[in-house]
Amino acid sequence: MTPITRSALLSSLQWRYATKIFDATKTIPEETWQALEEALVLTPSSYGLQPWRFIIVTDQELKQKLRAHSWNQAQVSDCSHYVVFATLSKMSEAEIDKFIAHTAKVRGVSPDTMAGYRGMMIKDIVHGPRGQSSHEWSARQAYIALGNFMTAAALLRVDTCPMEGFAPAEYDKILGLTPRGFTAAVCCAAGYRSESDKYAALPKVRFDLEHVVERI
Amino acid sequence: MTPITRSALLSSLQWRYATKIFDATKTIPEETWQALEEALVLTPSSYGLQPWRFIIVTDQELKQKLRAHSWNQAQVSDCSHYVVFATLSKMSEAEIDKFIAHTAKVRGVSPDTMAGYRGMMIKDIVHGPRGQSSHEWSARQAYIALGNFMTAAALLRVDTCPMEGFAPAEYDKILGLTPRGFTAAVCCAAGYRSESDKYAALPKVRFDLEHVVERI
Repeated sequence: MTPITRSALLSSLQWRYATKIFDATKTIPEETWQALEEALVLTPSSYGLQPWRFIIVTDQELKQKLRAHSWNQAQVSDCSHYVVFATLSKMSEAEIDKFIAHTAKVRGVSPDTMAGYRGMMIKDIVHGPRGQSSHEWSARQAYIALGNFMTAAALLRVDTCPMEGFAPAEYDKILGLTPRGFTAAVCCAAGYRSESDKYAALPKVRFDLEHVVERI
Repeated sequence: MTPITRSALLSSLQWRYATKIFDATKTIPEETWQALEEALVLTPSSYGLQPWRFIIVTDQELKQKLRAHSWNQAQVSDCSHYVVFATLSKMSEAEIDKFIAHTAKVRGVSPDTMAGYRGMMIKDIVHGPRGQSSHEWSARQAYIALGNFMTAAALLRVDTCPMEGFAPAEYDKILGLTPRGFTAAVCCAAGYRSESDKYAALPKVRFDLEHVVERI
């Protein structure tokens, strides 16, 4: 019944680490990468709104351009696939309507049947208190995708390195995100660790479970 | 080598949905829950700082109290384990020092050897631009944990429902988080779906892969 054992899950999460040096000669096989793209698409989000685009950069020249705005971190250009998690800069009624239209199509119902749901979302994410900072709400959703992605990759034995150290405004310019209403929220390099990456062998640093988990 | 097949991963993510009705008579077995707690602890975070506490609520009376401040959503009280992802309200040099001390202990080195790393983190997350909104930086990290948790749970065939619809200030009061410098960032109910939950059978709504994934 259970598709994975507890130890398979935990050993994968133990195997994972923030890869500092990727082996630039190794490429993620297409079928493995397709599964990771599907995993990204299946990420849960608030209300199911999916306020994101996943920009997958494999073009070497483009990676170099992005690296220049990423504290020159080698992971950007040496990884196999570089993922930019772009999110909506502002939620609007139009975005909610796109989602409602798509949901209606998938579920074979009329959009009108979802008027209550539509109104609730608009009241909250567009005109409500969270509408004031909907870019932040969107960014948080991208971090769910990031968490899902890194775990999925580890389970398929693909290495990753999450990246917050980059200049979003420069990324937005290079990737043409601004006119489309998107902004780069966070990134993740994916590929295979280099044998020379000494960080792979260092013991993982986590606070003790008793320190961060509290049962009430 | 790979601990899981692509189809095991994707079928688990397809199986997952935001559970609306939990079977209140079912409890997650202790060994399964322990694995999920370990998965939470293994979540990656920015700089490895782990600015969180995972509050696991199983006490029925407390669940009811929280439900009253969660738009009265039944998932809060009907689930088996209710997780409150609490994050640091403000990053400080003291928090960075706790992490440095722990890292030094785990890796068997002197904290002094990490002075550069310490300085970089403080310059960024405490005194830098991100220090102004470090509560938001912390909250984003909690969403990585949320993404990891929901995927891990699905792989172990545990149902979840992420919850943003709650009053953080009330949660902070009830759980005594404020004096400790923490605040409730997001929550997740975990347990087993009720057979009466019609949402389980609805087709999953996702934008087409071609719409949200862009390869460059």
